[in-house]
Amino acid sequence: MPHVRKSVAVCALVLFAAASLAAQGSPRADINSVNARFMATFNRGDAAGVGQFYSTDAVLMPPNSAAVHGRANIGNAWAAFGKAGGTNLKLSTTELVAHGDMAHEMGTYSLDIKPPKAAAVHDHGKFIVIWKRDPKAGWQLYRDIWNTDVPAPTH
Amino acid sequence: MPHVRKSVAVCALVLFAAASLAAQGSPRADINSVNARFMATFNRGDAAGVGQFYSTDAVLMPPNSAAVHGRANIGNAWAAFGKAGGTNLKLSTTELVAHGDMAHEMGTYSLDIKPPKAAAVHDHGKFIVIWKRDPKAGWQLYRDIWNTDVPAPTH
Repeated sequence: MPHVRKSVAVCALVLFAAASLAAQGSPRADINSVNARFMATFNRGDAAGVGQFYSTDAVLMPPNSAAVHGRANIGNAWAAFGKAGGTNLKLSTTELVAHGDMAHEMGTYSLDIKPPKAAAVHDHGKFIVIWKRDPKAGWQLYRDIWNTDVPAPTH
Repeated sequence: MPHVRKSVAVCALVLFAAASLAAQGSPRADINSVNARFMATFNRGDAAGVGQFYSTDAVLMPPNSAAVHGRANIGNAWAAFGKAGGTNLKLSTTELVAHGDMAHEMGTYSLDIKPPKAAAVHDHGKFIVIWKRDPKAGWQLYRDIWNTDVPAPTH
């Protein structure tokens, strides 16, 4: 029964591959871990440091600004958000769907903004992040866009 | 050589599946076509009508608003954008990556806003859409988020 022997060999290969994938952790667990480190980095005052969690070819898409291309520029953009008084960032994932080495995440954020000489404002909103898995560095933010739930000021 | 015959059968099946996929058109071409119909619908004054391009379980994530869940509510949200004076919508795709029955799109938009008793304003910004392919209806918007490139008004 040669095709039975072949099937057994194929199954062994599939199980080996599955075991290798499992060793990497699930996309959900790995991305949760990056998000936890992202928040901890920002909230300890190292806003520029969150740039390290983006891929070198990432695009950051902040409201009221042109898109920001590349990890170095993204670190600078986050540094500016920190200087503007952003603190106490919370990210919460409501959907994560992985497709091989990419994944999309939908979630909500909240943030306090305490400018140097003004009252603190609480902001909250929603985001989509496209994640990409680098063979060495693991899951990295590849595309990142958000907006606020707070109504626009009326004029 | 039973496993050779089996391999031929498997290859025939793979080729048949590939041919079936090709008959559907490429994700890029199909999504371009939906985007063209989306713009045409909105720009002929049928803002509510763009709801038909979303999946029944879609989430719309507009700036300055809570997320909007479901096709019917999304049609109503677009109707409100139309009433607020939105016109001349242009969508432009800068990246489209398909993963089986899902795809992510990054792009830019521009829009004129002409409220009933005020001067027209030109808005432009960026978006991410997660697309999902329905077995019958084809590609539909599943998650849709955007924000403006225009700086926030200073107070």
